[in-house]
Amino acid sequence: MGSWRAALDCMEMPHIPLPEGLPGITSGFAFRPETARPMRELAEVLLRGPNSLTSGEREMIAAFVSSRNECHFCQASHSAAAAHHLGGSYAAVDAVKRDYQTAPVSAKLKALLAIAAKVQQGGKQVTPSDVERARAEGATDVEIHDAVLIAAAFCMFNRYVDGLATLTPVDPAAYDAMGRRMAEQGYVQRS
Amino acid sequence: MGSWRAALDCMEMPHIPLPEGLPGITSGFAFRPETARPMRELAEVLLRGPNSLTSGEREMIAAFVSSRNECHFCQASHSAAAAHHLGGSYAAVDAVKRDYQTAPVSAKLKALLAIAAKVQQGGKQVTPSDVERARAEGATDVEIHDAVLIAAAFCMFNRYVDGLATLTPVDPAAYDAMGRRMAEQGYVQRS
Repeated sequence: MGSWRAALDCMEMPHIPLPEGLPGITSGFAFRPETARPMRELAEVLLRGPNSLTSGEREMIAAFVSSRNECHFCQASHSAAAAHHLGGSYAAVDAVKRDYQTAPVSAKLKALLAIAAKVQQGGKQVTPSDVERARAEGATDVEIHDAVLIAAAFCMFNRYVDGLATLTPVDPAAYDAMGRRMAEQGYVQRS
Repeated sequence: MGSWRAALDCMEMPHIPLPEGLPGITSGFAFRPETARPMRELAEVLLRGPNSLTSGEREMIAAFVSSRNECHFCQASHSAAAAHHLGGSYAAVDAVKRDYQTAPVSAKLKALLAIAAKVQQGGKQVTPSDVERARAEGATDVEIHDAVLIAAAFCMFNRYVDGLATLTPVDPAAYDAMGRRMAEQGYVQRS
C-alpha cells in the first residue's frame, strides 16, 4: 500500500471499469444505458415534471435526502440544481441541509421534508401524524406522494452512485456547472 | 380510537387515498402513472432483461434486500416470483432470506448477495474486497453492476410501498398468484 495505491484511493477508483472521465452517476448511466433510461426518466418526472411543488422545492428534497445518505456527488449536484432554480442562491438549500426546521422555506415544505427524513430511514417510519401535519400545512395528496417517492428514489440513486464507487469531483465549481445544466436541460438525454 | 380505528389500522389504511382494492405498489402505480412507467421499466430491465444472471437469481436478490428492509409486500411477492422462475419451489429463496451464506445457491450468487447486503445498508459499505470476491467467483462487471442496482432499486421500491402505507395482503396464496404473474408476464403494462 504505497503512494500508488494511495493515489488511486484518492481518485476513488470505481469498483468496476466504468467509462472514464465521467463524474458520479453519469458513468453508471454510460456503462448501462438499459437501466439509465428509466432512471433518467424517473428523475425527470419527479424533479421537473408538472407539479404544484416547484422544481426548486423538489431539488431541495433530493439534496436533503442525499445529504442524509452522505452521498456527496448527489447532494452537491442537486443542491446546485436547487440553487439554479432559485435564482442562483444556495442559501435556502444549505439551510435545509443544515437544519430544515429553521430553514427559510414554507411550513408545507418543512412538513414534506419531515416525511422525506422518515422515508430515508425506512418507509414504515412515516406515521399518520406526519401526513396529517403536511396536509394541515396545505400539502396535496400528489405532493405527499411525490415527497415519499423523491426520498425513496434518492435512496436508490445515492446507493447506486456510492455502491459503484463512482468518481466524485471535489471542485464546487464542477457541481455548480452540473446543477445549472440539470436545472436548465433536465435529466433525459436528447439524441 | 375504538374498534373502528383498530379495524382501519388492521387494514393498514394508506396515508393518501390510493385506488382501492389494489395491493402494495400497484396502488401507488395506479395513483401516479407518470412515475409508474419508469419504475415498471426499471424493474423489467433489472429482473427480466437479457442477463447472464437468471431471473430466478435476480428475483432472489430482490426478495433478499426487501426482506432486510422488512417490506413484507415486496419480499413476499418477489420470493414468489423467484420460486416461479425456479420451478415452483420456495426452498432456495427462503434459505437465502434466512441465511444466504448457507443457502443452496452458487458461490457467485452468495458473493453478489454479500454486495447487495452492503448496498442495503449504504453504498459506501461496499469494499474493493467484496467486489474482488465476487469477481473471483466468476461475476462479470455487468453482474456486479446489476447486483448493486437491484439492491439500490429495492431500497426505493420498499420505501415507496411502506412510506405510503399501501395495502399489504396477508394471504400467502395472494402472493403466490402475484409472483406467478410477475414471473410469466413481467412488470411492464401492456395496453
